[in-house]
Amino acid sequence: MQLYTYYRSTSSYRVRIALALKGLAYQSLAVNLLAGEQRAPAYLAVDPQGRVPALRVEGGQVLIQSGAIIEYLEERYPQVPLLPGDALARARARGIAALIGCDVHPLHNVSVLNRLRGLGQDEAQVQDWIRAWISDGLAAVEQLLEDSGWCLGPQPGLADVYLIPQLYAAERFSVALAAWPRIQRVAALAAGHPAFAQAHPAAQADAPSVQ
Amino acid sequence: MQLYTYYRSTSSYRVRIALALKGLAYQSLAVNLLAGEQRAPAYLAVDPQGRVPALRVEGGQVLIQSGAIIEYLEERYPQVPLLPGDALARARARGIAALIGCDVHPLHNVSVLNRLRGLGQDEAQVQDWIRAWISDGLAAVEQLLEDSGWCLGPQPGLADVYLIPQLYAAERFSVALAAWPRIQRVAALAAGHPAFAQAHPAAQADAPSVQ
Repeated sequence: MQLYTYYRSTSSYRVRIALALKGLAYQSLAVNLLAGEQRAPAYLAVDPQGRVPALRVEGGQVLIQSGAIIEYLEERYPQVPLLPGDALARARARGIAALIGCDVHPLHNVSVLNRLRGLGQDEAQVQDWIRAWISDGLAAVEQLLEDSGWCLGPQPGLADVYLIPQLYAAERFSVALAAWPRIQRVAALAAGHPAFAQAHPAAQADAPSVQ
Repeated sequence: MQLYTYYRSTSSYRVRIALALKGLAYQSLAVNLLAGEQRAPAYLAVDPQGRVPALRVEGGQVLIQSGAIIEYLEERYPQVPLLPGDALARARARGIAALIGCDVHPLHNVSVLNRLRGLGQDEAQVQDWIRAWISDGLAAVEQLLEDSGWCLGPQPGLADVYLIPQLYAAERFSVALAAWPRIQRVAALAAGHPAFAQAHPAAQADAPSVQ
């Protein structure tokens, strides 16, 4: 498999965690979002939306959107499951993933921030915007997590795959986690887990040597 | 089942379509977003995020986030499937759903528009913002659809469940569909389908008699 990825992209980071948790080998193809490579005609032929991540699977088909890619990996490679077997428990995990994947991260991705700047918002206002969405979302997530272990149990799963990249963004944009002890607990577990380390932005070949 | 819903909410509309396509009975519990009922303590006890839709299933558990709710309905009530059987085809449908559900609709929901207004953006700028995100998203969706039938085949499925409510929003915010013939074709099919009619905002008990 080949993963179109950008080291600091929250949604690419999710897919990298899922691949690492399942122990799946893949080739990373870096797409530099700051350089605008996602809008080059060659990349738009891969993903008409011009986003990362995208996953080229065996046979050549390209899958887009991190949520769809992770569900595909879960169906195709069920070993090391990211979702529990019970339908209600699966819905709970997917609910947290969707809260982060729909109502937090899309509000602070590069294209949104650029459109805000185009409307004349200065950098302080843009930073406030980012922090407000992350804080609102994490405050809700905190209430949905279990009192011990990973987000929803003793093993990392879909909710953790979404939460940890969002916490990387929180740190990058100076959102303090002090009010959310469950989230801090999950962050500490991920910091000691090799799959999360392997997927971390700083461990990617396209990461600048000094960030 | 009980569905917390608001007639004009894009994500509530998705779940209503899924329920209607599967022929599932449910009770509608209206949450008036304009009146701020989603932020009342009684509702936050249902959904800590304070959003609609939320689905109370048999047994009393409440599921949040339209994407998670629809996947639950698909697993629990597999009759009239919304997803095909093949993993790659499922990923393709989920990719279109996620494109709309993550990268289009969240950028123009009520909370985002209110935050934009709070930053001093005037109504014309807010309307331009909405139209830009819808147009960018639908232009990408157009390239991902099949050349005949519904979004991805002869029966309505997950991609249609997401596309049709987004087209309702497009019409509401005066985004013309002229450039997207495949999308127009799907819109025409939905306009003649009873499940889509039953789920339409105008058919809901909480819709004002004159909109």
